Amino acid sequence: MKIYFAGAIRGGRDDAALYYEIVRQLRSFGEVLTEHVADTEMGVLGQDIGDCRIHDRDLAWLKRADCLVAEVTTPSLGVGYEIGKATEWGKRVLCLYRPQLRRALSAMISGCEAVTVREYKQPNQLEKVLAEFFATANARRNQDA
Amino acid sequence: MKIYFAGAIRGGRDDAALYYEIVRQLRSFGEVLTEHVADTEMGVLGQDIGDCRIHDRDLAWLKRADCLVAEVTTPSLGVGYEIGKATEWGKRVLCLYRPQLRRALSAMISGCEAVTVREYKQPNQLEKVLAEFFATANARRNQDA
Repeated sequence: MKIYFAGAIRGGRDDAALYYEIVRQLRSFGEVLTEHVADTEMGVLGQDIGDCRIHDRDLAWLKRADCLVAEVTTPSLGVGYEIGKATEWGKRVLCLYRPQLRRALSAMISGCEAVTVREYKQPNQLEKVLAEFFATANARRNQDA
Repeated sequence: MKIYFAGAIRGGRDDAALYYEIVRQLRSFGEVLTEHVADTEMGVLGQDIGDCRIHDRDLAWLKRADCLVAEVTTPSLGVGYEIGKATEWGKRVLCLYRPQLRRALSAMISGCEAVTVREYKQPNQLEKVLAEFFATANARRNQDA
């Protein structure tokens, strides 16, 4: 199972440590193609290797991935863009969201039938969420094979 | 020319008055399908008509549109999602961005060949930017016809 993990980079790095924990948990379900998103040393400017190169590399990874798992609490153009592409390409998409006071998740995400949204408060609640998602993803993959 | 305008709603309404000014300028180039984005009375929770309905309505508008014009200074999942869909559907995309201190535009947007990014500081600089974009968009439309 090839997993594309998405989290905010230039949108804000407040949740970088949380992304690290999610990637740690994801590793028990497959290969995470985008571990750099969880690099707590990486700041809000992201990688400095040229934006076209980042874009094309990330889309190539997303194309190869079996599924997209995104942490969507911090609003991010890049994460939204990747969800738009992934749903268009028929990938399974899981969005993890921590409900906020006086805010709501984008209707483009919460109202998209092709996306599974799961709310949580603490990272230790994700174990069950991820296990359920990957059980279904694996079942579908075996069916397709 | 049918224009889909995108700006942050649940990502934050700091730029709502600016969206209003952009929509006002866009009207001289065609029909703006999404004028509600520029409604300065609408808060960060957006419309209360059901998220699936918002999602399906907005994607139907985007599909009908000839182009997408997005203000991308405030990070937004929904705007990113719409740019992902629009580029996948071969729509022309213009992103308007006000450079920020210690921040950078998402590499998924600035590094995407299918997107035209134009930086600006003041709304009065947009007249020229929009005129150029729509001159090219109209020329391409006439070529395709």
